[in-house]
Amino acid sequence: MKISIIGVGLIGGSMALKLRDKNIADFIYGIDNDKKHITEALDLKIIDAEADLENGIKNSDLVILAIPVDAARKLLPNVLDLISDQQTVMDAGSTKAGIVNAVRNHPRRSRFVAFHPMWGTENSGPKSAIAESFSGKAGVICNKEESADDALQTVESIVEALDMHMIYMNAEDHDIHTAYISHISHITSYALANTVLEKEREEETIFQLASSGFSSTVRLAKSHPEMWVPIFKQNKENVLDVLNEHITQLRKFKSALEKENYEYLEELISNANRIRGILR
Amino acid sequence: MKISIIGVGLIGGSMALKLRDKNIADFIYGIDNDKKHITEALDLKIIDAEADLENGIKNSDLVILAIPVDAARKLLPNVLDLISDQQTVMDAGSTKAGIVNAVRNHPRRSRFVAFHPMWGTENSGPKSAIAESFSGKAGVICNKEESADDALQTVESIVEALDMHMIYMNAEDHDIHTAYISHISHITSYALANTVLEKEREEETIFQLASSGFSSTVRLAKSHPEMWVPIFKQNKENVLDVLNEHITQLRKFKSALEKENYEYLEELISNANRIRGILR
Repeated sequence: MKISIIGVGLIGGSMALKLRDKNIADFIYGIDNDKKHITEALDLKIIDAEADLENGIKNSDLVILAIPVDAARKLLPNVLDLISDQQTVMDAGSTKAGIVNAVRNHPRRSRFVAFHPMWGTENSGPKSAIAESFSGKAGVICNKEESADDALQTVESIVEALDMHMIYMNAEDHDIHTAYISHISHITSYALANTVLEKEREEETIFQLASSGFSSTVRLAKSHPEMWVPIFKQNKENVLDVLNEHITQLRKFKSALEKENYEYLEELISNANRIRGILR
Repeated sequence: MKISIIGVGLIGGSMALKLRDKNIADFIYGIDNDKKHITEALDLKIIDAEADLENGIKNSDLVILAIPVDAARKLLPNVLDLISDQQTVMDAGSTKAGIVNAVRNHPRRSRFVAFHPMWGTENSGPKSAIAESFSGKAGVICNKEESADDALQTVESIVEALDMHMIYMNAEDHDIHTAYISHISHITSYALANTVLEKEREEETIFQLASSGFSSTVRLAKSHPEMWVPIFKQNKENVLDVLNEHITQLRKFKSALEKENYEYLEELISNANRIRGILR
């Protein structure tokens, strides 16, 4: 299979590496506005050749969009304009309702499969790509009834090759769940980093004292705004709902401490401990 | 050196394993109200023998308190009552002002060295103990001027044997810094777990979709209330200050989203990204 990857960064690069390892990809075109990404991706043998949008798409069986969600939403109609009924397009974005709505009435809608791999790190660029990233993680396909059977099968075979377990969901539900399971984690992590940076003016102290617990909680705060502002923008309503709930939950801790109600504090912590049974 | 460890859990057990590996400990007595901990610690060769408080202390050069901070604060005066001027006592608690104040006027105060190893996990008990836990982490000694030179030297040799880098600090400063660097991370993590558990009633969805980012942010929410309620209690004022600041920071994200001020959102995220330069 010949594949064009639009955006050879962390996600596009990791998919490329894995699909090549699995002998799914015979030839991979890289399409990226950032020429440094193209050079790095060629050096790392993530892609076989650079292509422009028209040439890459013309010569590919599958086109993968792995760019920020706002850019993907804008570009997808143009990509669909360029493809035939024998080609398939998939994305890898963290929000799904926006992109699905953007092409709802496109004559080639059925060639598109909306996809979200539940994996990412705080790093970006082809140098951060890892072939085994996706193994064992969830691969979510949204609104599958809007895709043609053969396009869906192509993407399902890709998700299997990535060693992900497949989940089907509608785009609206996806965006609600990811607000809870992924997007809010980033906001709390950013806010925590800002809290510490605001007060701990002596950066040396942070550096010297930071424990593994702190590092793991603020790890996501290293994630770049280029990727995350568009996600929050597209999932604004859901993220605000969860953020309000999260502030309410934090207020309960505040109230327990202010009132020195340590039984209530213990109750709040014991409730949180239930996550132990759900997450390994 | 003969050592008594009061509380053979995660921290006490990990210290025992490492000090034995380094040939610092010739014989380790385990003192623990939880008989299951004693049995496990004997099985895992973390301790050589069980002891009661009097016998353990009488036969040891060094006594290590590794129990929850409220229990340590209460027990330390009794331990100091039992020792001679040739013996040393250290603790390993996450808050320091309370314990230091509790023995300020004790006639044997100088035999005590207040210590906090900046390491922990969400797990507990001797089975979770790991010899290499402390390597490369910060070991904080507080109010060293209140300890006798030889007692301080003994504890410094222990901290070196644990392969930690030593930091000296006064107890009040320690409690402010740890509120930022450690305690608040636990509260945000607990609150995040409660947020998700409140809304995601279908636990299956959490389990299926949870990404590595979410797991790393809520990892600390698995930590037990037996350890953490006493920490929050003893460091209440500092934790409340940080919690208020954290809620303020979260509100900035809320406001940026509500007002669709995405430039401000980007600014908030870019500021948080500065943590990248501080934490590896």
